[in-house]
Amino acid sequence: MMHVVVLGAGRVAGHLIQSLNKAPDIQVVQVYSRKSTPLAERFPEVNFTQDLNALQTADVYLMSVTDDAIISLSEQLPFEKQLVVHTSGSTSLEAIHPKNRGGVFYPLQTFSQEKHIDFKVVPICLEATTESDAHTLETLARALSDHIYWLNSEQRLALHVAAVFVCNFVNHLYVIGADICREHQLPFELLQPLIQETAEKIMTMHPKEAQTGPALRNDRRTLEKHAQFMEGTPYHHLYQRITESIQNHVQKL
Amino acid sequence: MMHVVVLGAGRVAGHLIQSLNKAPDIQVVQVYSRKSTPLAERFPEVNFTQDLNALQTADVYLMSVTDDAIISLSEQLPFEKQLVVHTSGSTSLEAIHPKNRGGVFYPLQTFSQEKHIDFKVVPICLEATTESDAHTLETLARALSDHIYWLNSEQRLALHVAAVFVCNFVNHLYVIGADICREHQLPFELLQPLIQETAEKIMTMHPKEAQTGPALRNDRRTLEKHAQFMEGTPYHHLYQRITESIQNHVQKL
Repeated sequence: MMHVVVLGAGRVAGHLIQSLNKAPDIQVVQVYSRKSTPLAERFPEVNFTQDLNALQTADVYLMSVTDDAIISLSEQLPFEKQLVVHTSGSTSLEAIHPKNRGGVFYPLQTFSQEKHIDFKVVPICLEATTESDAHTLETLARALSDHIYWLNSEQRLALHVAAVFVCNFVNHLYVIGADICREHQLPFELLQPLIQETAEKIMTMHPKEAQTGPALRNDRRTLEKHAQFMEGTPYHHLYQRITESIQNHVQKL
Repeated sequence: MMHVVVLGAGRVAGHLIQSLNKAPDIQVVQVYSRKSTPLAERFPEVNFTQDLNALQTADVYLMSVTDDAIISLSEQLPFEKQLVVHTSGSTSLEAIHPKNRGGVFYPLQTFSQEKHIDFKVVPICLEATTESDAHTLETLARALSDHIYWLNSEQRLALHVAAVFVCNFVNHLYVIGADICREHQLPFELLQPLIQETAEKIMTMHPKEAQTGPALRNDRRTLEKHAQFMEGTPYHHLYQRITESIQNHVQKL
Protein backbone atom coordinates (compact mmCIF):
# COMPACT_ATOMS: atom_id res chain seq x y z
CA MET A 1 0.00 0.00 0.00
CA MET A 2 1.43 3.36 -1.04
CA HIS A 3 0.74 6.21 1.38
CA VAL A 4 0.24 9.67 -0.03
CA VAL A 5 -0.02 13.02 1.74
CA VAL A 6 -1.63 15.73 -0.39
CA LEU A 7 -0.51 19.29 0.28
CA GLY A 8 -3.19 21.70 -0.94
CA ALA A 9 -6.97 21.64 -1.12
CA GLY A 10 -7.86 23.32 -4.40
CA ARG A 11 -9.74 22.08 -7.43
CA VAL A 12 -6.99 19.78 -8.71
CA ALA A 13 -6.33 18.44 -5.19
CA GLY A 14 -10.01 17.49 -4.89
CA HIS A 15 -9.92 15.55 -8.18
CA LEU A 16 -6.65 13.84 -7.22
CA ILE A 17 -7.82 12.77 -3.74
CA GLN A 18 -11.04 11.37 -5.16
CA SER A 19 -9.33 9.34 -7.89
CA LEU A 20 -6.36 8.20 -5.78
CA ASN A 21 -8.60 6.90 -3.03
CA LYS A 22 -10.45 4.72 -5.54
CA ALA A 23 -7.19 3.02 -6.57
CA PRO A 24 -6.74 -0.26 -4.68
CA ASP A 25 -3.05 0.11 -3.76
CA ILE A 26 -3.00 3.80 -2.91
CA GLN A 27 -4.16 5.57 0.18
CA VAL A 28 -4.35 9.31 0.74
CA VAL A 29 -3.65 9.32 4.47
CA GLN A 30 -3.66 13.06 5.05
CA VAL A 31 -4.39 16.42 3.43
CA TYR A 32 -2.67 19.61 4.50
CA SER A 33 -4.28 23.00 3.82
CA ARG A 34 -3.53 26.44 5.18
CA LYS A 35 -7.17 27.12 5.96
CA SER A 36 -10.06 24.82 6.75
CA THR A 37 -11.52 23.35 3.56
CA PRO A 38 -14.87 21.92 2.39
CA LEU A 39 -12.88 18.93 1.10
CA ALA A 40 -12.75 17.67 4.71
CA GLU A 41 -16.48 16.95 4.52
CA ARG A 42 -16.21 15.29 1.11
CA PHE A 43 -13.51 12.89 2.32
CA PRO A 44 -14.34 11.93 5.93
CA GLU A 45 -11.97 8.94 5.74
CA VAL A 46 -8.95 11.26 5.30
CA ASN A 47 -7.15 13.13 8.08
CA PHE A 48 -7.07 16.91 7.44
CA THR A 49 -4.54 19.20 9.09
CA GLN A 50 -3.55 22.88 8.98
CA ASP A 51 -0.32 22.24 10.88
CA LEU A 52 2.81 21.37 8.90
CA ASN A 53 4.37 19.91 12.07
CA ALA A 54 1.56 17.36 12.24
CA LEU A 55 2.35 15.88 8.83
CA GLN A 56 2.43 12.11 8.79
CA THR A 57 5.01 9.86 7.18
CA ALA A 58 4.23 8.98 3.57
CA ASP A 59 5.80 7.51 0.44
CA VAL A 60 4.96 10.62 -1.57
CA TYR A 61 4.10 14.20 -0.65
CA LEU A 62 1.96 15.51 -3.51
CA MET A 63 1.90 19.32 -3.66
CA SER A 64 -1.17 20.61 -5.44
CA VAL A 65 -0.76 24.32 -4.73
CA THR A 66 -0.39 27.44 -6.86
CA ASP A 67 2.90 27.73 -8.74
CA ASP A 68 3.94 30.64 -6.52
CA ALA A 69 3.52 28.59 -3.34
CA ILE A 70 5.71 25.66 -4.42
CA ILE A 71 9.05 27.21 -3.43
CA SER A 72 7.98 28.53 -0.04
CA LEU A 73 5.86 25.55 0.99
CA SER A 74 8.58 23.05 0.03
CA GLU A 75 11.04 25.12 2.07
CA GLN A 76 8.79 25.08 5.14
CA LEU A 77 8.38 21.32 5.21
CA PRO A 78 9.68 20.12 8.61
CA PHE A 79 11.37 16.95 7.27
CA GLU A 80 14.03 15.99 4.75
CA LYS A 81 15.09 13.26 2.28
CA GLN A 82 11.46 12.50 1.42
CA LEU A 83 9.92 12.38 -2.06
CA VAL A 84 8.11 15.70 -2.58
CA VAL A 85 6.50 16.31 -5.98
CA HIS A 86 4.59 19.22 -7.45
CA THR A 87 1.78 19.14 -10.03
CA SER A 88 2.66 22.24 -12.04
CA GLY A 89 3.19 22.43 -15.78
CA SER A 90 5.35 25.52 -15.82
CA THR A 91 7.51 24.99 -12.74
CA SER A 92 10.85 23.17 -12.89
CA LEU A 93 11.66 20.26 -10.64
CA GLU A 94 14.33 22.41 -8.98
CA ALA A 95 11.64 24.59 -7.36
CA ILE A 96 11.28 21.85 -4.73
CA HIS A 97 13.67 22.68 -1.88
CA PRO A 98 16.72 20.36 -2.15
CA LYS A 99 16.46 19.14 1.43
CA ASN A 100 13.91 16.70 0.00
CA ARG A 101 13.99 14.62 -3.22
CA GLY A 102 12.04 16.54 -5.84
CA GLY A 103 9.74 15.20 -8.51
CA VAL A 104 6.92 16.24 -10.82
CA PHE A 105 3.48 14.70 -11.23
CA TYR A 106 1.67 16.88 -13.81
CA PRO A 107 -1.78 15.77 -14.97
CA LEU A 108 -2.55 17.58 -18.24
CA GLN A 109 -6.24 18.39 -18.04
CA THR A 110 -8.59 21.27 -17.35
CA PHE A 111 -10.36 20.72 -14.06
CA SER A 112 -13.67 22.27 -13.07
CA GLN A 113 -15.21 22.04 -9.65
CA GLU A 114 -18.45 20.82 -11.17
CA LYS A 115 -17.42 18.33 -13.79
CA HIS A 116 -16.21 14.77 -13.19
CA ILE A 117 -12.91 13.86 -14.84
CA ASP A 118 -12.08 10.36 -16.04
CA PHE A 119 -8.42 10.20 -15.03
CA LYS A 120 -7.87 7.04 -17.12
CA VAL A 121 -7.48 9.17 -20.26
CA VAL A 122 -5.61 12.08 -18.67
CA PRO A 123 -1.91 12.17 -19.66
CA ILE A 124 0.28 12.32 -16.56
CA CYS A 125 3.73 13.81 -17.09
CA LEU A 126 6.39 12.65 -14.66
CA GLU A 127 9.88 13.73 -13.71
CA ALA A 128 12.13 12.32 -10.98
CA THR A 129 15.80 12.40 -10.02
CA THR A 130 16.40 8.79 -8.92
CA GLU A 131 15.44 5.39 -10.33
CA SER A 132 13.60 4.51 -7.18
CA ASP A 133 11.56 7.72 -7.15
CA ALA A 134 10.78 7.20 -10.83
CA HIS A 135 9.41 3.79 -9.94
CA THR A 136 7.28 5.21 -7.11
CA LEU A 137 5.83 7.96 -9.32
CA GLU A 138 5.14 5.55 -12.14
CA THR A 139 3.21 3.27 -9.76
CA LEU A 140 1.22 6.24 -8.47
CA ALA A 141 0.49 7.51 -12.00
CA ARG A 142 -0.52 4.07 -13.31
CA ALA A 143 -3.07 3.80 -10.52
CA LEU A 144 -4.84 6.78 -12.11
CA SER A 145 -4.13 6.81 -15.82
CA ASP A 146 -3.23 4.68 -18.83
CA HIS A 147 -1.18 7.53 -20.32
CA ILE A 148 2.17 8.15 -18.63
CA TYR A 149 4.90 10.34 -20.12
CA TRP A 150 8.41 11.13 -18.88
CA LEU A 151 9.24 14.73 -19.75
CA ASN A 152 12.07 16.98 -18.67
CA SER A 153 11.27 20.41 -17.23
CA GLU A 154 11.79 22.20 -20.56
CA GLN A 155 9.48 19.84 -22.40
CA ARG A 156 6.90 20.24 -19.67
CA LEU A 157 7.04 24.02 -20.00
CA ALA A 158 6.59 23.69 -23.78
CA LEU A 159 3.61 21.41 -23.18
CA HIS A 160 2.13 23.88 -20.72
CA VAL A 161 2.39 26.71 -23.26
CA ALA A 162 0.80 24.48 -25.92
CA ALA A 163 -1.96 23.64 -23.43
CA VAL A 164 -2.64 27.35 -22.86
CA PHE A 165 -3.17 27.73 -26.63
CA VAL A 166 -5.44 24.70 -27.10
CA CYS A 167 -7.41 25.07 -23.85
CA ASN A 168 -7.41 28.54 -22.21
CA PHE A 169 -7.10 30.47 -25.48
CA VAL A 170 -9.54 28.21 -27.29
CA ASN A 171 -12.05 28.74 -24.50
CA HIS A 172 -11.61 32.50 -24.86
CA LEU A 173 -12.59 32.14 -28.53
CA TYR A 174 -15.70 30.27 -27.35
CA VAL A 175 -16.42 33.26 -25.07
CA ILE A 176 -16.11 35.61 -28.06
CA GLY A 177 -18.44 33.38 -30.11
CA ALA A 178 -20.95 33.43 -27.25
CA ASP A 179 -20.68 37.23 -26.98
CA ILE A 180 -21.33 37.70 -30.70
CA CYS A 181 -24.32 35.35 -30.49
CA ARG A 182 -25.78 37.16 -27.50
CA GLU A 183 -25.45 40.55 -29.19
CA HIS A 184 -27.45 39.27 -32.18
CA GLN A 185 -30.13 37.32 -30.31
CA LEU A 186 -28.71 33.99 -31.39
CA PRO A 187 -28.68 31.05 -28.95
CA PHE A 188 -25.16 29.81 -28.13
CA GLU A 189 -26.36 26.22 -28.73
CA LEU A 190 -26.18 27.06 -32.46
CA LEU A 191 -22.37 26.92 -32.17
CA GLN A 192 -22.12 23.78 -30.04
CA PRO A 193 -22.18 21.13 -32.80
CA LEU A 194 -19.53 23.10 -34.72
CA ILE A 195 -17.34 23.33 -31.62
CA GLN A 196 -17.67 19.59 -30.99
CA GLU A 197 -16.91 18.67 -34.60
CA THR A 198 -13.90 21.01 -34.72
CA ALA A 199 -12.44 19.29 -31.66
CA GLU A 200 -13.35 15.83 -32.89
CA LYS A 201 -11.77 16.29 -36.31
CA ILE A 202 -8.25 16.50 -34.85
CA MET A 203 -8.65 13.04 -33.28
CA THR A 204 -8.25 11.61 -36.78
CA MET A 205 -6.73 14.42 -38.88
CA HIS A 206 -3.68 16.60 -38.20
CA PRO A 207 -4.89 20.13 -37.36
CA LYS A 208 -3.04 21.47 -40.42
CA GLU A 209 -5.18 19.32 -42.70
CA ALA A 210 -8.30 20.26 -40.75
CA GLN A 211 -7.82 24.01 -41.28
CA THR A 212 -10.63 25.65 -43.28
CA GLY A 213 -12.16 29.12 -43.54
CA PRO A 214 -11.83 32.48 -45.28
CA ALA A 215 -8.33 33.26 -43.92
CA LEU A 216 -6.90 30.00 -45.30
CA ARG A 217 -8.63 30.45 -48.67
CA ASN A 218 -7.66 34.14 -48.66
CA ASP A 219 -11.29 34.83 -49.52
CA ARG A 220 -10.96 38.62 -49.64
CA ARG A 221 -14.65 39.37 -50.05
CA THR A 222 -15.61 37.48 -46.88
CA LEU A 223 -12.61 38.82 -44.95
CA GLU A 224 -13.69 42.33 -45.93
CA LYS A 225 -17.30 41.71 -44.85
CA HIS A 226 -16.12 40.30 -41.52
CA ALA A 227 -13.75 43.24 -40.99
CA GLN A 228 -16.65 45.65 -41.52
CA PHE A 229 -18.85 43.63 -39.20
CA MET A 230 -16.19 43.58 -36.45
CA GLU A 231 -15.34 47.28 -36.67
CA GLY A 232 -15.83 49.01 -33.37
CA THR A 233 -16.20 45.74 -31.45
CA PRO A 234 -13.63 44.70 -28.81
CA TYR A 235 -12.54 41.71 -30.89
CA HIS A 236 -11.78 43.56 -34.11
CA HIS A 237 -7.99 43.44 -33.69
CA LEU A 238 -7.96 39.84 -32.55
CA TYR A 239 -9.85 38.86 -35.70
CA GLN A 240 -7.16 40.56 -37.80
CA ARG A 241 -4.23 39.10 -35.82
CA ILE A 242 -5.44 35.50 -35.97
CA THR A 243 -6.30 35.86 -39.66
CA GLU A 244 -2.75 37.10 -40.30
CA SER A 245 -1.31 34.28 -38.23
CA ILE A 246 -3.22 31.71 -40.32
CA GLN A 247 -2.01 33.35 -43.53
CA ASN A 248 1.61 33.54 -42.33
CA HIS A 249 1.43 29.88 -41.43
CA VAL A 250 0.19 28.97 -44.91
CA GLN A 251 3.11 30.84 -46.50
CA LYS A 252 5.60 28.90 -44.37
CA LEU A 253 4.32 25.56 -45.67
CA MET B 1 -41.63 14.07 -53.64
CA MET B 2 -39.53 17.25 -53.60
CA HIS B 3 -37.13 17.61 -56.51
CA VAL B 4 -33.83 19.34 -55.91
CA VAL B 5 -31.17 20.48 -58.38
CA VAL B 6 -27.79 21.07 -56.77
CA LEU B 7 -25.58 23.71 -58.39
CA GLY B 8 -21.95 23.05 -57.45
CA ALA B 9 -19.86 19.96 -56.78
CA GLY B 10 -17.56 20.89 -53.91
CA ARG B 11 -17.14 19.42 -50.44
CA VAL B 12 -20.40 20.76 -49.02
CA ALA B 13 -22.32 19.78 -52.18
CA GLY B 14 -21.07 16.20 -51.76
CA HIS B 15 -22.29 16.03 -48.17
CA LEU B 16 -25.65 17.59 -49.10
CA ILE B 17 -26.31 15.25 -52.05
CA GLN B 18 -25.47 12.22 -49.94
CA SER B 19 -27.74 13.20 -47.05
CA LEU B 20 -30.61 14.53 -49.19
CA ASN B 21 -30.76 11.36 -51.25
CA LYS B 22 -31.18 9.31 -48.08
CA ALA B 23 -34.28 11.32 -47.09
CA PRO B 24 -37.46 9.51 -48.20
CA ASP B 25 -39.34 12.51 -49.65
CA ILE B 26 -36.46 14.30 -51.33
CA GLN B 27 -34.75 13.54 -54.58
CA VAL B 28 -31.68 15.23 -55.98
CA VAL B 29 -32.54 14.93 -59.67
CA GLN B 30 -29.53 16.74 -61.11
CA VAL B 31 -26.17 18.28 -60.25
CA TYR B 32 -24.64 21.10 -62.26
CA SER B 33 -20.88 21.72 -62.19
CA ARG B 34 -18.66 23.83 -64.41
CA LYS B 35 -16.17 21.01 -64.88
CA SER B 36 -16.53 17.25 -64.72
CA THR B 37 -16.52 16.03 -61.12
CA PRO B 38 -15.64 12.82 -59.23
CA LEU B 39 -19.05 13.19 -57.52
CA ALA B 40 -20.62 11.79 -60.73
CA GLU B 41 -19.09 8.41 -59.91
CA ARG B 42 -20.16 8.55 -56.26
CA PHE B 43 -23.80 9.21 -57.22
CA PRO B 44 -24.57 7.19 -60.34
CA GLU B 45 -28.33 7.61 -59.75
CA VAL B 46 -28.06 11.40 -60.27
CA ASN B 47 -27.90 13.20 -63.60
CA PHE B 48 -24.78 15.40 -63.90
CA THR B 49 -24.53 18.27 -66.35
CA GLN B 50 -22.05 21.02 -67.24
CA ASP B 51 -24.61 22.89 -69.33
CA LEU B 52 -26.85 25.47 -67.61
CA ASN B 53 -29.29 25.23 -70.52
CA ALA B 54 -29.83 21.55 -69.73
CA LEU B 55 -31.09 22.24 -66.18
CA GLN B 56 -34.21 20.33 -65.25
CA THR B 57 -37.29 21.64 -63.50
CA ALA B 58 -37.10 21.40 -59.71
CA ASP B 59 -38.79 22.65 -56.55
CA VAL B 60 -35.52 24.07 -55.24
CA TYR B 61 -32.23 25.02 -56.88
CA LEU B 62 -29.60 24.64 -54.15
CA MET B 63 -26.42 26.61 -54.91
CA SER B 64 -23.40 25.19 -53.10
CA VAL B 65 -20.70 27.31 -54.73
CA THR B 66 -18.07 29.75 -53.46
CA ASP B 67 -19.44 33.03 -52.13
CA ASP B 68 -17.93 34.87 -55.07
CA ALA B 69 -19.77 32.72 -57.60
CA ILE B 70 -23.26 33.23 -56.14
CA ILE B 71 -23.98 36.54 -57.88
CA SER B 72 -22.73 35.56 -61.33
CA LEU B 73 -24.13 32.02 -61.35
CA SER B 74 -27.58 33.16 -60.18
CA GLU B 75 -27.50 35.78 -62.94
CA GLN B 76 -26.67 33.19 -65.60
CA LEU B 77 -29.53 30.85 -64.75
CA PRO B 78 -31.67 30.50 -67.90
CA PHE B 79 -35.02 30.53 -66.09
CA GLU B 80 -36.98 32.80 -63.75
CA LYS B 81 -39.51 32.82 -60.87
CA GLN B 82 -37.98 29.67 -59.40
CA LEU B 83 -36.78 29.16 -55.82
CA VAL B 84 -32.98 29.55 -55.87
CA VAL B 85 -31.14 29.35 -52.54
CA HIS B 86 -27.50 29.65 -51.56
CA THR B 87 -25.68 27.92 -48.70
CA SER B 88 -23.37 30.74 -47.61
CA GLY B 89 -23.05 32.15 -44.11
CA SER B 90 -21.73 35.55 -45.07
CA THR B 91 -23.77 36.32 -48.21
CA SER B 92 -27.09 38.12 -48.04
CA LEU B 93 -30.24 36.73 -49.64
CA GLU B 94 -30.16 39.65 -52.09
CA ALA B 95 -27.09 38.22 -53.80
CA ILE B 96 -29.44 35.88 -55.66
CA HIS B 97 -30.47 37.58 -58.91
CA PRO B 98 -34.04 38.93 -58.48
CA LYS B 99 -35.36 37.25 -61.62
CA ASN B 100 -35.75 34.20 -59.35
CA ARG B 101 -37.08 33.95 -55.75
CA GLY B 102 -34.08 33.99 -53.43
CA GLY B 103 -33.55 32.01 -50.25
CA VAL B 104 -30.84 30.79 -47.92
CA PHE B 105 -30.11 27.26 -46.71
CA TYR B 106 -26.99 27.53 -44.51
CA PRO B 107 -25.81 24.41 -42.68
CA LEU B 108 -23.49 25.50 -39.86
CA GLN B 109 -20.79 22.85 -39.77
CA THR B 110 -17.19 22.26 -40.82
CA PHE B 111 -17.09 19.76 -43.66
CA SER B 112 -14.09 17.62 -44.57
CA GLN B 113 -13.83 15.45 -47.61
CA GLU B 114 -12.82 12.50 -45.44
CA LYS B 115 -15.12 12.66 -42.47
CA HIS B 116 -18.77 11.63 -42.35
CA ILE B 117 -21.16 14.26 -40.96
CA ASP B 118 -24.33 13.39 -39.09
CA PHE B 119 -26.66 16.06 -40.48
CA LYS B 120 -29.28 15.34 -37.79
CA VAL B 121 -27.36 17.52 -35.31
CA VAL B 122 -26.23 20.21 -37.77
CA PRO B 123 -28.10 23.51 -37.30
CA ILE B 124 -29.60 24.65 -40.61
CA CYS B 125 -30.25 28.39 -40.88
CA LEU B 126 -32.99 29.39 -43.29
CA GLU B 127 -34.18 32.58 -44.92
CA ALA B 128 -36.95 33.04 -47.49
CA THR B 129 -39.07 35.85 -48.91
CA THR B 130 -42.50 34.18 -49.20
CA GLU B 131 -44.55 31.95 -46.90
CA SER B 132 -44.65 29.24 -49.50
CA ASP B 133 -40.87 29.26 -50.02
CA ALA B 134 -40.40 29.22 -46.26
CA HIS B 135 -42.55 26.08 -46.15
CA THR B 136 -40.53 24.43 -48.94
CA LEU B 137 -37.19 25.21 -47.26
CA GLU B 138 -38.42 24.03 -43.89
CA THR B 139 -39.50 20.70 -45.39
CA LEU B 140 -36.12 20.34 -47.08
CA ALA B 141 -34.23 21.23 -43.89
CA ARG B 142 -36.31 18.91 -41.68
CA ALA B 143 -35.46 16.04 -43.99
CA LEU B 144 -31.83 16.52 -42.94
CA SER B 145 -31.73 17.99 -39.46
CA ASP B 146 -33.60 18.32 -36.16
CA HIS B 147 -32.23 21.84 -35.66
CA ILE B 148 -33.80 24.51 -37.86
CA TYR B 149 -33.36 28.25 -37.30
CA TRP B 150 -34.85 31.24 -39.11
CA LEU B 151 -32.23 34.00 -39.24
CA ASN B 152 -32.13 37.24 -41.17
CA SER B 153 -29.06 38.06 -43.26
CA GLU B 154 -27.46 40.19 -40.55
CA GLN B 155 -27.86 37.49 -37.90
CA ARG B 156 -26.44 34.95 -40.31
CA LEU B 157 -23.37 37.13 -40.89
CA ALA B 158 -22.92 37.47 -37.11
CA LEU B 159 -23.20 33.71 -36.78
CA HIS B 160 -20.66 33.21 -39.55
CA VAL B 161 -18.16 35.49 -37.79
CA ALA B 162 -18.77 33.66 -34.50
CA ALA B 163 -18.22 30.38 -36.35
CA VAL B 164 -14.88 31.62 -37.68
CA PHE B 165 -13.80 32.28 -34.08
CA VAL B 166 -14.94 28.94 -32.62
CA CYS B 167 -13.95 26.77 -35.59
CA ASN B 168 -11.31 28.19 -37.98
CA PHE B 169 -9.50 30.24 -35.33
CA VAL B 170 -9.75 27.47 -32.74
CA ASN B 171 -8.26 25.04 -35.24
CA HIS B 172 -5.39 27.46 -35.83
CA LEU B 173 -4.67 27.33 -32.09
CA TYR B 174 -4.60 23.53 -32.40
CA VAL B 175 -2.05 23.97 -35.21
CA ILE B 176 0.09 26.15 -32.92
CA GLY B 177 -0.18 23.56 -30.14
CA ALA B 178 0.90 20.86 -32.58
CA ASP B 179 3.83 23.01 -33.76
CA ILE B 180 5.07 23.59 -30.22
CA CYS B 181 4.79 19.87 -29.48
CA ARG B 182 6.72 18.92 -32.61
CA GLU B 183 9.52 21.36 -31.82
CA HIS B 184 9.97 19.76 -28.39
CA GLN B 185 9.66 16.11 -29.40
CA LEU B 186 6.24 15.78 -27.75
CA PRO B 187 3.52 13.68 -29.41
CA PHE B 188 0.43 15.72 -30.35
CA GLU B 189 -1.76 13.01 -28.77
CA LEU B 190 -0.71 14.47 -25.40
CA LEU B 191 -2.98 17.44 -26.12
CA GLN B 192 -5.96 15.50 -27.46
CA PRO B 193 -7.76 14.72 -24.16
CA LEU B 194 -7.39 18.37 -23.12
CA ILE B 195 -8.82 19.55 -26.44
CA GLN B 196 -11.77 17.18 -26.12
CA GLU B 197 -12.50 18.16 -22.52
CA THR B 198 -12.24 21.88 -23.33
CA ALA B 199 -14.86 21.46 -26.07
CA GLU B 200 -17.04 19.20 -23.94
CA LYS B 201 -17.11 21.53 -20.96
CA ILE B 202 -19.09 24.16 -22.86
CA MET B 203 -21.89 21.67 -23.51
CA THR B 204 -22.86 22.06 -19.85
CA MET B 205 -21.13 25.29 -18.69
CA HIS B 206 -21.16 28.77 -20.23
CA PRO B 207 -17.69 29.41 -21.73
CA LYS B 208 -17.24 32.36 -19.33
CA GLU B 209 -17.52 30.01 -16.36
CA ALA B 210 -15.25 27.49 -18.05
CA GLN B 211 -12.39 29.98 -18.50
CA THR B 212 -9.20 29.01 -16.61
CA GLY B 213 -5.48 29.63 -16.99
CA PRO B 214 -2.69 32.07 -16.13
CA ALA B 215 -4.19 35.02 -18.07
CA LEU B 216 -7.47 34.83 -16.15
CA ARG B 217 -5.70 34.44 -12.79
CA ASN B 218 -3.24 37.15 -13.80
CA ASP B 219 -0.52 34.74 -12.68
CA ARG B 220 2.41 37.03 -13.52
CA ARG B 221 5.14 34.52 -12.82
CA THR B 222 3.72 31.99 -15.30
CA LEU B 223 2.89 34.69 -17.87
CA GLU B 224 6.51 35.87 -17.61
CA LYS B 225 7.88 32.34 -18.05
CA HIS B 226 5.65 31.77 -21.06
CA ALA B 227 6.64 35.14 -22.58
CA GLN B 228 10.31 34.16 -22.27
CA PHE B 229 9.59 30.75 -23.73
CA MET B 230 7.73 32.25 -26.72
CA GLU B 231 10.30 34.93 -27.49
CA GLY B 232 11.58 34.64 -31.03
CA THR B 233 8.85 32.18 -32.05
CA PRO B 234 6.22 33.13 -34.68
CA TYR B 235 3.43 32.94 -32.08
CA HIS B 236 4.94 35.30 -29.52
CA HIS B 237 2.66 38.22 -30.38
CA LEU B 238 -0.45 36.10 -30.63
CA TYR B 239 0.21 34.79 -27.12
CA GLN B 240 0.35 38.38 -25.86
CA ARG B 241 -2.73 39.54 -27.78
CA ILE B 242 -4.98 36.70 -26.63
CA THR B 243 -3.73 37.06 -23.05
CA GLU B 244 -4.62 40.77 -23.19
CA SER B 245 -8.01 39.97 -24.69
CA ILE B 246 -8.78 37.56 -21.82
CA GLN B 247 -7.70 40.17 -19.28
CA ASN B 248 -9.72 42.94 -20.96
CA HIS B 249 -12.72 40.68 -20.92
CA VAL B 250 -12.36 40.02 -17.20
CA GLN B 251 -12.23 43.76 -16.51
CA LYS B 252 -15.48 44.26 -18.43
CA LEU B 253 -17.33 41.78 -16.22
